[in-house]
Amino acid sequence: MGTTAPVAGGDAMATHQLINRLHRIEGQVRGIARMVEQDTYCIDVLTQVSAASRALQGVALVLLEQHMRHCLAEAARIGGSVEEARIKEASDAIARLVRS
Amino acid sequence: MGTTAPVAGGDAMATHQLINRLHRIEGQVRGIARMVEQDTYCIDVLTQVSAASRALQGVALVLLEQHMRHCLAEAARIGGSVEEARIKEASDAIARLVRS
Amino acid sequence: MGTTAPVAGGDAMATHQLINRLHRIEGQVRGIARMVEQDTYCIDVLTQVSAASRALQGVALVLLEQHMRHCLAEAARIGGSVEEARIKEASDAIARLVRS
Amino acid sequence: MGTTAPVAGGDAMATHQLINRLHRIEGQVRGIARMVEQDTYCIDVLTQVSAASRALQGVALVLLEQHMRHCLAEAARIGGSVEEARIKEASDAIARLVRS
Repeated sequence: MGTTAPVAGGDAMATHQLINRLHRIEGQVRGIARMVEQDTYCIDVLTQVSAASRALQGVALVLLEQHMRHCLAEAARIGGSVEEARIKEASDAIARLVRS
Repeated sequence: MGTTAPVAGGDAMATHQLINRLHRIEGQVRGIARMVEQDTYCIDVLTQVSAASRALQGVALVLLEQHMRHCLAEAARIGGSVEEARIKEASDAIARLVRS
Repeated sequence: MGTTAPVAGGDAMATHQLINRLHRIEGQVRGIARMVEQDTYCIDVLTQVSAASRALQGVALVLLEQHMRHCLAEAARIGGSVEEARIKEASDAIARLVRS
Repeated sequence: MGTTAPVAGGDAMATHQLINRLHRIEGQVRGIARMVEQDTYCIDVLTQVSAASRALQGVALVLLEQHMRHCLAEAARIGGSVEEARIKEASDAIARLVRS
């Protein structure tokens, strides 16, 4: 999985972008704490919470796509109980995400 | 996909259960319309809407698991652009679900 | 609450629209059951499930807005424990909705 | 609004707790970035993303409850276009939250 140069290169890039997105979300959450401290109007704080939440969801969707592309695809080629376990695990992760 | 007897049997059962769940949700939604008609207290109507929403989500999660087990696994064995297209399609479906 | 003609009139219209929306959602769910029965491609079924889910959410948001406009506003004018109980109840309903 | 000592006291406490919760979420998001950097198994990263997402939602629900208790209640006592504008604003915030 991911042994050819282009794919590996693409992944290194994708990983780098994910880390950047997470650092931005970290900054957003720090900014929300500061808004609460400064007694900012609730609705404006809520708008920022919704934005941070949506950004986290975006990260989750990228992670899921990478997971399907690598781990699930590999499991499907192995088949049998490995495949079954990985599909169950991915379904559970999607359920947690949809319900979070 | 699903050419061995046990899997096919399991799927016929799973399909039957899905249809039953959907018919129950249809009844729930009809019940909610009736509650609104009879001017039921908003909070009680909202509780039923949340329940129907959660039930629909449950159906979506079963569909996604079946999709990963059959279509995605098959695509991974084919590989190349078929695999890539199916993964993109599944990711988009998960995104619509998470954001709905 | 809602005893003056214009408000009541507005509400009768809003109620009528809500019932129509719920009947459309009921039809959407029936259509999804039919798609599953006819073995429609999972991704297309999922797209319809997401649409029905989003439509249900739209109904919930209208109900919540009506609730704030009438019941919460009335409770705020009464004040005290009535107000407190109604706010707690509305918060719980919003939490169920956000988490469904 | 919130001019009597007990209420103000309660709010100072609630604000303090909210800021603590937000600082914990900030730490969670930083931890997720580290997990991605260290190439942690996607599913484990996703579990943490779902947890952070749920924690953010919890903050949003507290903010909304405070908003209803203070701003909406005050608006309801004022009535008229102030009340109407505040209810519209709260509805929009709830919609953004439900759809995020």
